Amino acid sequence: MKIAIFNHNRLGIVQHQKVVDVTEVAQWNPEHPSASFLQLMETFETQKPELQKAADQGQGQELSEVTFQSPVPSTNKIWAAPVNYKKHQDEMNKQFNNAPRTAADIKLFLKSPSSLSGPAEPIRLPFKERRTDHEAELGYVVGKKAKNVHSSDAKEYIFGYFALLDISIRGEEERPWRKSFDTFTPIGPWIVTADEIEDPNQLDLKLWVNDEIRQEGNTKHLIYDSFKCFEAATQNMTLHPGDIMATGTPEGVGPINEGDKVRIHVESVGEFTVDVVADYNEYLDKG
Amino acid sequence: MKIAIFNHNRLGIVQHQKVVDVTEVAQWNPEHPSASFLQLMETFETQKPELQKAADQGQGQELSEVTFQSPVPSTNKIWAAPVNYKKHQDEMNKQFNNAPRTAADIKLFLKSPSSLSGPAEPIRLPFKERRTDHEAELGYVVGKKAKNVHSSDAKEYIFGYFALLDISIRGEEERPWRKSFDTFTPIGPWIVTADEIEDPNQLDLKLWVNDEIRQEGNTKHLIYDSFKCFEAATQNMTLHPGDIMATGTPEGVGPINEGDKVRIHVESVGEFTVDVVADYNEYLDKG
Repeated sequence: MKIAIFNHNRLGIVQHQKVVDVTEVAQWNPEHPSASFLQLMETFETQKPELQKAADQGQGQELSEVTFQSPVPSTNKIWAAPVNYKKHQDEMNKQFNNAPRTAADIKLFLKSPSSLSGPAEPIRLPFKERRTDHEAELGYVVGKKAKNVHSSDAKEYIFGYFALLDISIRGEEERPWRKSFDTFTPIGPWIVTADEIEDPNQLDLKLWVNDEIRQEGNTKHLIYDSFKCFEAATQNMTLHPGDIMATGTPEGVGPINEGDKVRIHVESVGEFTVDVVADYNEYLDKG
Repeated sequence: MKIAIFNHNRLGIVQHQKVVDVTEVAQWNPEHPSASFLQLMETFETQKPELQKAADQGQGQELSEVTFQSPVPSTNKIWAAPVNYKKHQDEMNKQFNNAPRTAADIKLFLKSPSSLSGPAEPIRLPFKERRTDHEAELGYVVGKKAKNVHSSDAKEYIFGYFALLDISIRGEEERPWRKSFDTFTPIGPWIVTADEIEDPNQLDLKLWVNDEIRQEGNTKHLIYDSFKCFEAATQNMTLHPGDIMATGTPEGVGPINEGDKVRIHVESVGEFTVDVVADYNEYLDKG
């Protein structure tokens, strides 16, 4: 099932290229989307038949006629895997003189929850002069509280998947600083629930800037796959419903600039396009 | 005013070495402490006279007879300043071969919200073999949404202050991983509201391990002071009510081990003592 939030916090189900408003059926409160979202995840298994029925019988609006929002209304943490594709590792090591890394070195890092944005919101660049890159990723949202969970059990804890852009300023600062600016984590266009993704570790990922293809990968090349990332995270900390995981980006990472349009596509999930706008920060430009 | 959460989410005011239960007066809901806390911060200025009256007239319980919890029930982010005292900078550079840093290099990093714990909860060590350090800090909680706020205005946005332990595993991994284990951010014993702290940049900080003094500093030696940290954070991202800032630790950082008792004292704020227990993780010990 494809679950969307659209047009001022309405809840929708996407099917046959249309979105059906299921706000009432789901007892979803547009005034409190974050609480409603946690409630939806908790009761999804029992609610599902009813939601499906409503989606099948509903009128539906054309996808192009609605505005999609971040399908996770708010999150408590965004936990992300650095250099998690072999070829991306090679390009980072080459361009930025990173020390060579192996799978055993991969330790997750955090992005700020306030960096989360939706598929219709522009990416706002804080720096005029510093290189800011696109990183196309598969993301997922945690559905259940988890601690010390083995990768073979991870599937049960993941509520659903979406496309995720991990926007990153290059430089010497630590990742949380470079990747946490507002609008630096666009996700969307909706959540595909885990039951619809046969294998999250076999999905094509693509990213274009202004119709030029820049990244083309498949999650089968992940060094730590989606489930292994989950295991690693839960060994470090307790994951809670609504927490987001960014699984890492394949090779082809490159700069974005004011006026660009960035399109991300994830197989079996969907795609969205965001604008890049300037929001230069004088304080930061002073260094 | 000293605001505490104690005995299963009761709200209390601490004065004259006693804590008075003001749960009813404040319309605080112990079933929903996080929502109640946001509500309290929002309405504090108008509620304050009534809370003070209740505190003055209430019976009060001895501090030693109650169990204090984290005075911030939950948080959306913990934003922290690395090596923010000159002498701590020197000791880190010396011990861990860090590249020398200047104030201009200081870029904040994130700790996981799930690392937050209270002053009566033990620190749980995940590693038997790896060095895990105490870091005594002044912490504060944000009371109002903030973006691009100058340090001279920061005071208006800070709801209150507390003592904070930034527990840290040493090593090559990035700070979010090394500092985000569950129980790695004990705070307490209560919040002292900002109106009671004349100058947060003139407070003594002390830390003992088993009655041996290990850290002794004053926030006047901060490279980026409390307000400057706030400014830097709001240039990077939007801060929301409930977000926590850890301002950095002075020199004297050192290891803690199973069985230790760690005591932190912050002038005009208060003190608390936490136990250190083993909770070794086989998965992580494999490397």
